Amino acid sequence: MKALYFDGEAQVIDLPTPSPAKGEALIRILKAGICNTDLEIMKGYMGFRGVLGHEFVGVVEECENSFLQGKRVVGEINCACHTCPICRMELPHHCTNRTVLGIQGRNGAFAEFVTLPEQNLHIVPDTVSDEIAVFTEPLAAAFRIPEQIEIASTDRIVILGAGKLGQLIAQVLYTHSKNLLCIGKNQWKLEVLKHLQIPTAHVDEPRERGAADIVVESTGSYGGFPRALELVRPEGTIVLKTTVAHPTAFDLSVPVINEVRVLGSRCGPFRPALDALAMGTVEVGAMITDTIELKDGVRALERATQPDSFKIMIEM
Amino acid sequence: MKALYFDGEAQVIDLPTPSPAKGEALIRILKAGICNTDLEIMKGYMGFRGVLGHEFVGVVEECENSFLQGKRVVGEINCACHTCPICRMELPHHCTNRTVLGIQGRNGAFAEFVTLPEQNLHIVPDTVSDEIAVFTEPLAAAFRIPEQIEIASTDRIVILGAGKLGQLIAQVLYTHSKNLLCIGKNQWKLEVLKHLQIPTAHVDEPRERGAADIVVESTGSYGGFPRALELVRPEGTIVLKTTVAHPTAFDLSVPVINEVRVLGSRCGPFRPALDALAMGTVEVGAMITDTIELKDGVRALERATQPDSFKIMIEM
Repeated sequence: MKALYFDGEAQVIDLPTPSPAKGEALIRILKAGICNTDLEIMKGYMGFRGVLGHEFVGVVEECENSFLQGKRVVGEINCACHTCPICRMELPHHCTNRTVLGIQGRNGAFAEFVTLPEQNLHIVPDTVSDEIAVFTEPLAAAFRIPEQIEIASTDRIVILGAGKLGQLIAQVLYTHSKNLLCIGKNQWKLEVLKHLQIPTAHVDEPRERGAADIVVESTGSYGGFPRALELVRPEGTIVLKTTVAHPTAFDLSVPVINEVRVLGSRCGPFRPALDALAMGTVEVGAMITDTIELKDGVRALERATQPDSFKIMIEM
Repeated sequence: MKALYFDGEAQVIDLPTPSPAKGEALIRILKAGICNTDLEIMKGYMGFRGVLGHEFVGVVEECENSFLQGKRVVGEINCACHTCPICRMELPHHCTNRTVLGIQGRNGAFAEFVTLPEQNLHIVPDTVSDEIAVFTEPLAAAFRIPEQIEIASTDRIVILGAGKLGQLIAQVLYTHSKNLLCIGKNQWKLEVLKHLQIPTAHVDEPRERGAADIVVESTGSYGGFPRALELVRPEGTIVLKTTVAHPTAFDLSVPVINEVRVLGSRCGPFRPALDALAMGTVEVGAMITDTIELKDGVRALERATQPDSFKIMIEM
């Protein structure tokens, strides 16, 4: 099968079609999406070597569970051992021995086929198109936030970053509080949110310091956390979504003095994400700027780094 | 009056005795304690210039409230404006316009007299000696932690740092969970805790990674936070107590991936601290290694930096 492989550099190569292990399904990929994490991996994040990609929709070609056979599915990316102490604490997403699709110890979805545990799969409703279904994984990451913190309808929320994840977070949290502002640097990306009536601001506009109850840091850049510390009120909450490849200098005395709560946030629940896509309560189609074939996968990755691109789809 | 003044360097000088503003009391200091924050200020933390010192016990010499007149008191260090938006949110400790005794915009307690708002004062029970009462302020900072987080009796707690604050935190949290370990680098400081039956370990002993539910970072050094990130379990809590003078490089992707909660923690409630000192549920006397007169205040500060010193008292 063809696969977009990263081994210090990305290239499309031929690999044997994977064989599903016990409890796993073989999935034929239909479409996959490029995430900033893929680009960070190419800068060294996680030290991953293998097939990239973790946002996908596909069809189950082979599995033990006959109910799943032939179904169109999306898949959760963390594969747990279910035996380690962390799994026994019912934290399988944090399993010490986990593999993570296209990120850690497991080939990803920028390929014609992929394998995943059957229990990771979710059937996609017929009303959700392939390209929309690809957003399930990042949208689930947005739905992780209301799982982690209580959000009051009066909470003043600032989302830093109007990129792919920032936009999804803004849409999800806007259903919790209308007192929300998404701050970005690309005017045309902010326009996408404005069309959804979600308040936006350019990063260069002056802002009141210490006035947000909740700041979500989803800039994907080093400057996001210090900026979040400026904006959050004392005893407020910063949700950290950004994972970047290298350590950065921070003044940690600021969150101590202001007694800020900083919460790391990663993968989330697929069910509310699929529901939101099916019901149209979150709009994602306008984010897709390019659909590129897998054979041109290297060009797709390059395209994803360009400032006038947004969500890049890879189609198989 | 004599005062230990810091203006780039510390020296004992003569200053006019302060006049209490409306609502304030004039307090004659009996004893005061040196805190690591005083030493950090001398390295540039907070950019403070003035009389150092924020841990004290004294006698009210002059005030409007006749009930306080002549009473022996300790005092909360944050002086709020009670009118700004943060104060109106009932967060006076975080008042935007606050002054902080010996730390920010207000002369401190290493002096013969100090002024503080009457409402900041707490009367010391007769059974609590002067030198024990001086521990109220740092002990209140330890009692801040159970105000901020729920602690189960089964929670595995690690305290990083067996210094002055670390020891107080260990004693307070040990009443919540016996599954506690205080990790320090000075064997003789660990001995102080061992005498209280509190489990300790040397920092060089190997430790299981990712196995603590709660890690309190009270090392007062740059290395504490990365170490806390190693020890805390996924979705666990790090309480940050350390304030250091300069920014440091951290890899923030670790708390994101592990969805760690990081909570800044500063000043705490005086009432439970005074109660614990009065009832003897927290033991502090063994920490005092030196009592030095105010006129030798510069030597007291030097002594506080020496590895064989612990709590240094300044007496007036």
